Amino acid sequence: MPATKAEIRSGAYFDSAFLMQLQRNLAALPGVLDAGVVMGTEGNKELLAHIDLLSPEVEKAKPDDLVLVVRAESEAVAAGALGKVDELLTKRKSAVSEEHRPQSLETAVNDLPDAEWVLISVAGRYAAGVAREALRLGKHVFLFSDNVSVDDEISLKQISSSKGLLVMGPDCGTAIIHGVGLGFANKVRLGPIGVVAAAGTGLQQVTSRIHQMGGGVSYGIGTGGRDLSEKVGAITFKQGIDVLSRDPETAVIVLVSKPPAPRVADEVLQVARKAGKPVVVNFIARPLAARQIENLYFAGSLDEAAQMAVELVKNPPQAKAGSLPLERFAPGQRYFRGLFSGGTLAYEAQYILQGYLPRVWANAPLNKEYKLANSLISQEHTIVDLGEDEFTVGRLHPMMDNELRIRRLLEEGEDPSVAVIMLDVVIGFGSHPDPASELAPAVVKAKKAAEAGGRYLEVVAVVTGTGEDPQNLDHQIEQLKGAGVWVSTSNEEVVRYAGQILQGLNAQPTPDGAASTPVDLTGLQKPLAGINVGLESFSENLKVQNVPTVQVDWRPPAGGNDRLMSILERMKQR
Amino acid sequence: MPATKAEIRSGAYFDSAFLMQLQRNLAALPGVLDAGVVMGTEGNKELLAHIDLLSPEVEKAKPDDLVLVVRAESEAVAAGALGKVDELLTKRKSAVSEEHRPQSLETAVNDLPDAEWVLISVAGRYAAGVAREALRLGKHVFLFSDNVSVDDEISLKQISSSKGLLVMGPDCGTAIIHGVGLGFANKVRLGPIGVVAAAGTGLQQVTSRIHQMGGGVSYGIGTGGRDLSEKVGAITFKQGIDVLSRDPETAVIVLVSKPPAPRVADEVLQVARKAGKPVVVNFIARPLAARQIENLYFAGSLDEAAQMAVELVKNPPQAKAGSLPLERFAPGQRYFRGLFSGGTLAYEAQYILQGYLPRVWANAPLNKEYKLANSLISQEHTIVDLGEDEFTVGRLHPMMDNELRIRRLLEEGEDPSVAVIMLDVVIGFGSHPDPASELAPAVVKAKKAAEAGGRYLEVVAVVTGTGEDPQNLDHQIEQLKGAGVWVSTSNEEVVRYAGQILQGLNAQPTPDGAASTPVDLTGLQKPLAGINVGLESFSENLKVQNVPTVQVDWRPPAGGNDRLMSILERMKQR
Repeated sequence: MPATKAEIRSGAYFDSAFLMQLQRNLAALPGVLDAGVVMGTEGNKELLAHIDLLSPEVEKAKPDDLVLVVRAESEAVAAGALGKVDELLTKRKSAVSEEHRPQSLETAVNDLPDAEWVLISVAGRYAAGVAREALRLGKHVFLFSDNVSVDDEISLKQISSSKGLLVMGPDCGTAIIHGVGLGFANKVRLGPIGVVAAAGTGLQQVTSRIHQMGGGVSYGIGTGGRDLSEKVGAITFKQGIDVLSRDPETAVIVLVSKPPAPRVADEVLQVARKAGKPVVVNFIARPLAARQIENLYFAGSLDEAAQMAVELVKNPPQAKAGSLPLERFAPGQRYFRGLFSGGTLAYEAQYILQGYLPRVWANAPLNKEYKLANSLISQEHTIVDLGEDEFTVGRLHPMMDNELRIRRLLEEGEDPSVAVIMLDVVIGFGSHPDPASELAPAVVKAKKAAEAGGRYLEVVAVVTGTGEDPQNLDHQIEQLKGAGVWVSTSNEEVVRYAGQILQGLNAQPTPDGAASTPVDLTGLQKPLAGINVGLESFSENLKVQNVPTVQVDWRPPAGGNDRLMSILERMKQR
Repeated sequence: MPATKAEIRSGAYFDSAFLMQLQRNLAALPGVLDAGVVMGTEGNKELLAHIDLLSPEVEKAKPDDLVLVVRAESEAVAAGALGKVDELLTKRKSAVSEEHRPQSLETAVNDLPDAEWVLISVAGRYAAGVAREALRLGKHVFLFSDNVSVDDEISLKQISSSKGLLVMGPDCGTAIIHGVGLGFANKVRLGPIGVVAAAGTGLQQVTSRIHQMGGGVSYGIGTGGRDLSEKVGAITFKQGIDVLSRDPETAVIVLVSKPPAPRVADEVLQVARKAGKPVVVNFIARPLAARQIENLYFAGSLDEAAQMAVELVKNPPQAKAGSLPLERFAPGQRYFRGLFSGGTLAYEAQYILQGYLPRVWANAPLNKEYKLANSLISQEHTIVDLGEDEFTVGRLHPMMDNELRIRRLLEEGEDPSVAVIMLDVVIGFGSHPDPASELAPAVVKAKKAAEAGGRYLEVVAVVTGTGEDPQNLDHQIEQLKGAGVWVSTSNEEVVRYAGQILQGLNAQPTPDGAASTPVDLTGLQKPLAGINVGLESFSENLKVQNVPTVQVDWRPPAGGNDRLMSILERMKQR
């Protein structure tokens, strides 16, 4: 009759690769039906229950306890299997002792002083301590371990960023440093695409796809999946963007993240805008606000991010000619006023300006919060749709009758805080027979009035229509240009041009957060050498890649006793 | 000394073009500084106050009253200007009477029986009545008037859709019917792109840009900006999609809308998926869930929508080879189970599946609402990330250790409601040395078990890695394919394939809403003839386009008396 037997060993530490091996060895013994070898956490006990390996002893196990369970054909076989555990453990020890290994990180650093990196994959509760030690020794950290607290993550990243070091992780599955893969990493061609990822398999999928498409990768900087959370605030992510923006071998940057905190994602995008290189963005589940804003390219999937990056390397975007006339504005000029006749164009303008300005007030707002208190009076950045019902009771639509709009244009132009006024000029059947003939003189008047007041007024316009319309598109554009209006037939293009000016005029110095020291690039570019604490397979991976490596024969400090551990750590930090 | 004088005329009706003309004529009189001629609504009175044309008489005016205000150099000049109003009104009357015009819509229809269309631009409070009359006479309606209630809109659209007629509007600024522009419309080349737009200037911007890019337009069907609101439920929009999907001259459809109600937008997209043609979608301010889902192409701006449509006409997408194996599944098989080792891939899968399935449960959900109660037990559509912390305390990551995942795979395969199981296989340094060697036999076992139970189990997998990885990408793919797994190296592609199958298996018959009669295509394709009620310029526009037109010499029924009007209307409907 099948029987289940268990054994609990208190305070025993083995790495998880060894536990898996032990479980497989037990399960392979003759007469054994199933086996479980896990730490006694609640989650693991639920799992054992789910697969019918729970027994009364196991239920009593504590998280620090090693649980060994065997289900076998008979009680005797189960007991016999458990009896073999010590033998299996001994086998392992003799295999390990063949090779000399330093017992501490400090010794390992002496053994391999060139190592810039420490890889850490010990159990979560020990990982922060090891990482702190590595930072103290001036090393970058690849922190594979999960089950590390957010508070530890924040404190580690604050230390590292102040020292110009990277902490990739915790729970960082993968990274590529100048052609060398750390942790779970694919062998990917060296090339001009740099990736920063708060997304382990995201990084693997993107870099693998880049390789499959013929592209190559300079760096794949992992940050751990929580880096873009509200609490952590993208400390490592921003360091990563900074590294890649300075790295001369990186031509295109790709940013990937698991669902980020919206505020943090916005902050990261502000940093990315200043990278001076094309940046492809795929933040999972964050809807695309646009396909492109300046140097940012938004991808809808990991796969598309890879495609876009490869494409951008092949066809780099042309640098834009001409700069923005920012210096022409007087101090205090900083607001946008859009005077629209077309509701859709007004909505689209609001939507696009979200990428440039914190808020835009409107009489027909996208977001009810930003409803203009009085449609006749602008405030800060404002968009008025003069074709809204409130303006058209018993009055002609503003596409036919320019009067109201001209009055408003002159009024807005007199406001010393206004920098840019936008108009839409929609021609075609039904519209005013020659709108520019009325609007252009009004623009001249408004610009002159501003000039007399010591200001510069930028007026921009989208003209919608065709060359076959009765008003003739070109003739309308000429008149407006003659009045000094910046004109395009694409609403999007006009709004983005205005958005850039306004962003420039309203730019705040970027807050630095905690004092951050730039990461030294030459250190990253040197041939890699690494010290590994934890899963031995990570050492083996480095050796396969011809990377000098030292494996630390790590044991929990103070035998895993929490109180002693914390005393030891405090002593070291003195 | 400048003085302001006003006159109020009760119950006088003039169209807004005439009011503008009167205002301009008054303002042009010698000594007159400014003039206002408007209906006495609150909005208009605020506006007069804002431009300093308010007087005590004006404040007392009611919405039905015609308000005449003049500010002039002196009281005498102001009074004199107002004294000329009757003369100006008489001038107008004599100009109008030169031409014979029917006094009613019914007479106009007798005069021009070929007219399929009635254009209505009378003041909002009369517009619904005229539209109802036009529908009664079996005509399509282009309803330019705004200030029409939502209730009237719904009732008009219910009538029209039951009769196979279109009501474009209210507040529909523009439309293009087989090359003829109605209302505000641009002269645009005839061509294979059909547009449906709940967005007047959106339609103008898109069609103008299409023309500028060398493309052409078959139809531009306006619906009024509220059509995609929760209340109206896209009645006209859906009719528009239906017309364009059946129209043989339309090759690509473009959908544009002002910010739509999310539920209605989803419904519209469901309809659009079945259009059998590429559909470009630009719903303003609705973030893009993807760049492409099946035949739907999502544009980030009006400009981009035009570009994409022109591009799709030039390079039509290839029809996909092979159909989905829907008929192989047993009744009751309908759920998805994703067993992931990669957190990012699991998140992306959830995100993409939102486009196919109402909800997906997960242990690490995108939306907290869909958090799996117990990570060990799937429900409905489920995605489990086996690399989450809860599974990895003292246990190897599932990229190294397949055991847990294989157990779960076999378990899910036994669930008779499961149709598709997805795996991610992430290779590279650090991962299991040959994951497919363990996963493939497990898939075979699961598929066999399902077959024995009279079911078909689809197993799909994304394999992430490169040909230079130690496990060799091709070798992994071959083993999985050998086990009957559908494989791709793109996570997105695998998820979309699964999504299509699941959507097929879970398809509900589309609810028809109110019984809707298809719009007769031949009527739309006939050379256009139209009857115009309201702004005369709309008649003139049609004449310029060589469209036979009758202008109705319309006056408010019952002299604008609301009570009498409603009695009259009820009598007509008998």
